[in-house]
Amino acid sequence: MSTRDERLLARVALTWLAEPGTWSVHRLVQQLGPVAALDLLLDGGAPDRRLRDVVAARTGAEDARAVAVEALARTERVGARLLTPEDDEWPVRLGDLSRLVLAGASRRVDLETAPPLCFWVRGGWPLGETLDRSVAVVGARAATGYGVHVATEIGYGLAERDWAVVSGGAFGIDAAAHRGALTAGGVTVAVLACGVDRPYPMGNAALFDRIADTGLLVSEWMPGADPLRPRFLIRNRVIAAATRGAVLVEAAARSGATQTLNRAIAMGRPAMIVPGPVTSAMSVGAHELLREHSAARLVTGVAHVLEEVGRIGFDLAPPARGPDRPTDLLDDEATLVLESLPRRGVLGVDALAARAGVDLRTAMRKLTLLEELAMVIRRDGGYALAPPAKPATPAPEAQG
Amino acid sequence: MSTRDERLLARVALTWLAEPGTWSVHRLVQQLGPVAALDLLLDGGAPDRRLRDVVAARTGAEDARAVAVEALARTERVGARLLTPEDDEWPVRLGDLSRLVLAGASRRVDLETAPPLCFWVRGGWPLGETLDRSVAVVGARAATGYGVHVATEIGYGLAERDWAVVSGGAFGIDAAAHRGALTAGGVTVAVLACGVDRPYPMGNAALFDRIADTGLLVSEWMPGADPLRPRFLIRNRVIAAATRGAVLVEAAARSGATQTLNRAIAMGRPAMIVPGPVTSAMSVGAHELLREHSAARLVTGVAHVLEEVGRIGFDLAPPARGPDRPTDLLDDEATLVLESLPRRGVLGVDALAARAGVDLRTAMRKLTLLEELAMVIRRDGGYALAPPAKPATPAPEAQG
Repeated sequence: MSTRDERLLARVALTWLAEPGTWSVHRLVQQLGPVAALDLLLDGGAPDRRLRDVVAARTGAEDARAVAVEALARTERVGARLLTPEDDEWPVRLGDLSRLVLAGASRRVDLETAPPLCFWVRGGWPLGETLDRSVAVVGARAATGYGVHVATEIGYGLAERDWAVVSGGAFGIDAAAHRGALTAGGVTVAVLACGVDRPYPMGNAALFDRIADTGLLVSEWMPGADPLRPRFLIRNRVIAAATRGAVLVEAAARSGATQTLNRAIAMGRPAMIVPGPVTSAMSVGAHELLREHSAARLVTGVAHVLEEVGRIGFDLAPPARGPDRPTDLLDDEATLVLESLPRRGVLGVDALAARAGVDLRTAMRKLTLLEELAMVIRRDGGYALAPPAKPATPAPEAQG
Repeated sequence: MSTRDERLLARVALTWLAEPGTWSVHRLVQQLGPVAALDLLLDGGAPDRRLRDVVAARTGAEDARAVAVEALARTERVGARLLTPEDDEWPVRLGDLSRLVLAGASRRVDLETAPPLCFWVRGGWPLGETLDRSVAVVGARAATGYGVHVATEIGYGLAERDWAVVSGGAFGIDAAAHRGALTAGGVTVAVLACGVDRPYPMGNAALFDRIADTGLLVSEWMPGADPLRPRFLIRNRVIAAATRGAVLVEAAARSGATQTLNRAIAMGRPAMIVPGPVTSAMSVGAHELLREHSAARLVTGVAHVLEEVGRIGFDLAPPARGPDRPTDLLDDEATLVLESLPRRGVLGVDALAARAGVDLRTAMRKLTLLEELAMVIRRDGGYALAPPAKPATPAPEAQG
């Protein structure tokens, strides 16, 4: 076995011995390299009792190296490839996980946020390059029609501008974001919390097939690995770290998606939140993030997202505008004059100026303007409102 | 005529000569008092040409003092009262308008934001005291069902906590906020852009009657005055200045309601924005304000509003929470153990610990906990998932 193969095997064994993200394992690998780190752990030499016990529990049932050998064989069988930090394809942005510290963390998933030891990948694109121009779009599984619509639009819009979409594999927002990107013929990346050969949930099987064909399926867990619940939260740190920024579309008050955004914020990545109706439970998490984090940015569509992740002066969103109305062209004085005209009948310029509270000269100037705009007509030595245009448009409702 | 009556009359004449908010008139009154200020203007001695022309146009048609005398008589006839800064009832917070400077202003309504000279009031409550514990609730006329629902809820909730609601008299959000407050038996204040005897729009006539009976109808314009369009924008500075804070529920991209919020922000008042669906044109203005002003605060209901305007440590909103699920009680290790159990059949503790990646002792401790919570059962020398409780609850969907 070559040195490279030995190192690969050791990384696979290590990522099986303790769940991905375990800091003590990451540090051992940094210090000793994967092969020596594995030897140390298998000899019962883990630096802390917790890790020692975890290793003992796993190795009590199976042989770590044998598991790794079988995983490597299965990797080939399922058409996946194994990546490690030694590969050119490795996403360098994941290195930022080294400085991810979550304030007040007490849960294991919040404490054990070390960079991945390796990745299984299905799909033809180079992982690092793809993620380097990618945006995470995450949110609720139990998304509403509104959330699905918005996530699809954002996925579509990103793909259209040659940005890759990154999400999990869940129903709801994840699937909608992927579908949007696929519809636009773009690249989309599903980061899974189980083996790339058994994407979960099964209901998205057709979607996963399409993603594997045209995008990327990625996982820190070996082929065949189960989607155990804590793994989704462990996985989220990768979605936050590997992308240029993360968009949250819908999320309940406590949810994995808000956790992903919190990680993005902690790493200084643009954290973008789509608001929703305050009457929707599926937007409570989004609104809470916007209230809690001044760094969280409200976005209403892909233009705003591109503004956050794109280069400055590039991909800027146009400012929002209301519809144009003829009266929008008028300044205050012209409006005053126009509004001072009686609904029926004619008024002289003097009386009109007095009623509008403008001087005579201004009144005449504004009446000339209003005449040009066909809003007033001259009649019987005075002015009157112009008759409505044909075909009759509904009269603009006055402000109240 | 008493000195007081003379001063009242002068203020009424002045507020008719030039639209409320005109700085040069305000400054003259500050320097000379209302009576001498009026004399000066009527003698053609206005300090700037614009004001001189405006005065000339108005006085060319009618006599200012005669108009004021008639207005005072009409005030009495319609059961209104006239307030000036000399009255105890005068809302002191309006003084903050003296320091209202709108950056980059060019429109007359943005430049002429001086405090009011006088107010016409219908209703029994003392104006200043009422406004001192009030919140403005403003938004679109063409509100959606969503906006109307939220504005009604906020109006109701404020009234229930003894806060007065302040708004305009428009259809949509204004009317909904008033109705909410009225339903709760609270005090609501409509600040009008026309005479208090002819509230506009007519479609809200019954609402105005109820407000006059149990709340307050307020205007800077004399009885009989027309609701000319620019007056709504002039009026908005009063809504922003007189209240403890302003809530925007729905607004199109350019709208009077966003202008009110901009004024509140410029005066350092809490500016609170209710988000909505990004697919709704009626929330575009709200989202733009949230994106443009770091001072603008996202609120999702009356609890958040009270948090902003109430005293610190008082009226604090409870943090948002999702629904409790039994599995929420579990820490990561217990969850790992639970999730590692097969859907059917039994697993021994050793195998379970290995599968979950926890040490044996932890696995046993967590299994004891899970047994107490009736989530697992001991069977055939191992553990199995507990059968679902009766009546059968839907199995929690696993995370994907």
